[in-house]
Amino acid sequence: MSTITIRMLASALNLSPGTVSKALKDSYEISAETKLKVLEMARKLDYVPNPYAGGLRKHKSKTIGIVLPAINDSFFSLAIEGIESVAQEKGYHVLIYLSHEHYLREAAILKDFGSGRVDGVLISVACETKEGGHIRDLIRKNVPVVFFDRVCDDVKTAQVSTDDFQVGYTATKHLIERNCARILYLSISESLSISQKRMQGYQQALRCYDMPVSPDDTILCMGDAGQMENIIRHALSTVKEGDKRPDGIVASVEKLVTPVYLACDSMNLSIPEDVKVICFSNMPLAPLLCPALTTITQPAFEIGRTAATLLFKAIEGKDFDIAKASITLPSVLMVRAST
Amino acid sequence: MSTITIRMLASALNLSPGTVSKALKDSYEISAETKLKVLEMARKLDYVPNPYAGGLRKHKSKTIGIVLPAINDSFFSLAIEGIESVAQEKGYHVLIYLSHEHYLREAAILKDFGSGRVDGVLISVACETKEGGHIRDLIRKNVPVVFFDRVCDDVKTAQVSTDDFQVGYTATKHLIERNCARILYLSISESLSISQKRMQGYQQALRCYDMPVSPDDTILCMGDAGQMENIIRHALSTVKEGDKRPDGIVASVEKLVTPVYLACDSMNLSIPEDVKVICFSNMPLAPLLCPALTTITQPAFEIGRTAATLLFKAIEGKDFDIAKASITLPSVLMVRAST
Repeated sequence: MSTITIRMLASALNLSPGTVSKALKDSYEISAETKLKVLEMARKLDYVPNPYAGGLRKHKSKTIGIVLPAINDSFFSLAIEGIESVAQEKGYHVLIYLSHEHYLREAAILKDFGSGRVDGVLISVACETKEGGHIRDLIRKNVPVVFFDRVCDDVKTAQVSTDDFQVGYTATKHLIERNCARILYLSISESLSISQKRMQGYQQALRCYDMPVSPDDTILCMGDAGQMENIIRHALSTVKEGDKRPDGIVASVEKLVTPVYLACDSMNLSIPEDVKVICFSNMPLAPLLCPALTTITQPAFEIGRTAATLLFKAIEGKDFDIAKASITLPSVLMVRAST
Repeated sequence: MSTITIRMLASALNLSPGTVSKALKDSYEISAETKLKVLEMARKLDYVPNPYAGGLRKHKSKTIGIVLPAINDSFFSLAIEGIESVAQEKGYHVLIYLSHEHYLREAAILKDFGSGRVDGVLISVACETKEGGHIRDLIRKNVPVVFFDRVCDDVKTAQVSTDDFQVGYTATKHLIERNCARILYLSISESLSISQKRMQGYQQALRCYDMPVSPDDTILCMGDAGQMENIIRHALSTVKEGDKRPDGIVASVEKLVTPVYLACDSMNLSIPEDVKVICFSNMPLAPLLCPALTTITQPAFEIGRTAATLLFKAIEGKDFDIAKASITLPSVLMVRAST
């Protein structure tokens, strides 16, 4: 390993060590020109910082971890941008870990964090995660954790989410006002916090309008997009005697959009004439779909940014009670042609 | 730090240390039931593996890094899934780093890798990256690097990409056969390997059909989605005397889809009647857009999987010449209503 220090780099460049250090961390305080100069000199002199040595000395890896179920989702990619905007200001690395909705993977990732790989963790839990013992274990090792979007209510730590109950209610009320007589609620998990709360909002709206709340109308969509499409097709075609045909769908997560549209298409059900559809989604493409999709649009970037801000407060040892910080940011109904 | 070893865990569970080790790595060879048992016992005994100590001893972090420009893109999220499918088989962690198309961020990330944080790197370079000195530096430190999709031709290492020239040609030929008389090529970079090759394919097709190749028809779309939309609107409306109005668009990357559709919409240009549009994209939503989008669909998952397979060959010291491995996987034209 190299023996070049930041001080030696600074002297070669006629800059202060602080400036060089910030430039190497890609700090916003330093101009692009200076950063380039510093990086070029660092390369010339073969300067290599040793993050692990630094980590052992200062107990700081200068790294935060994001654990989330998937990234092919506009909500999560926007939330990551929000998180990164804060991390960059702080000169921190951001590592992204995917649980792929599996509890075991999530638990293995968190276990690994216990050894000092990261200074703090932002997590949106997997579908399969029913309780937060693995998260409490990590917090006991003094790694601060902040939930964003999908939380475990049995873990006492900061959480940043949207008003899931309220917008579940708003989405359903919107369909009722558009004269839907039988509304399906599509979920991807029976245990996930956001699914539960959005579903309770859906049920509350039905009750407020004196409509029956039937367990048959809450559809659990598991598997890949093709399997989800089959489940939705089945739900749209199965009508018990005396029941109305479903004419409204509240889809609780973005990855249901494609299977819902394809299912309706394959059954020759026209949206919105035969079935009205509303989905929780941050897709920029929502207005360009056939028909344009009515969405509950979450403040994804702000959720990420706020969660990261709370995490850095904890990392920096600021005087605040992480166990009690709970922030709810409102989502917005965007009415388009699908309803 | 804990003093519990894998051997002690294994003995408490009446399992072999190999089984415990594989279970902790979430290996596919171990059943979910056994993994759960192992994780529960590991938690009970407070077992924590120390990745850095391991890294120093074995010179293996059991981690690979993926460096890519963005994740809100179907190509990259599918490629990541391909990479993870291999990494999981090998019991490796995957860390995702975003360059956000900035050369300086990319260089800083790679610099950091030089200190042993990862055993190997998969990279798709940023728009701004014009040469690969920072990548050669990393390779000199014995960290194997494999390019996927976006490559630097001045770095002699393995690359896995698609037949960019060929499909640039195919896309343009398709528009010519649909009677487009003036075809714009939309790019996000003047230097990026894929942009160059796709553009050369576009130009080759124009020449084959005796159509003029004008530098005015290659449009560089920079900035955010709104800025891109403005640039595209400008390109569609600026017609010099004697010129034909543009009636075809080859969009070379997925993030151009939204601005192209919005620009046409705001100018009351109908797709495909007024302008035919084809885009390089892996969006599952392409068939659901208004109108359904004709795409060049890349083998994204396979590109990721193949790149990761090459990287692990290098990490495991298999007998192959990483500098000479270059694999091209073909893309497919999917004709839909937009052309």
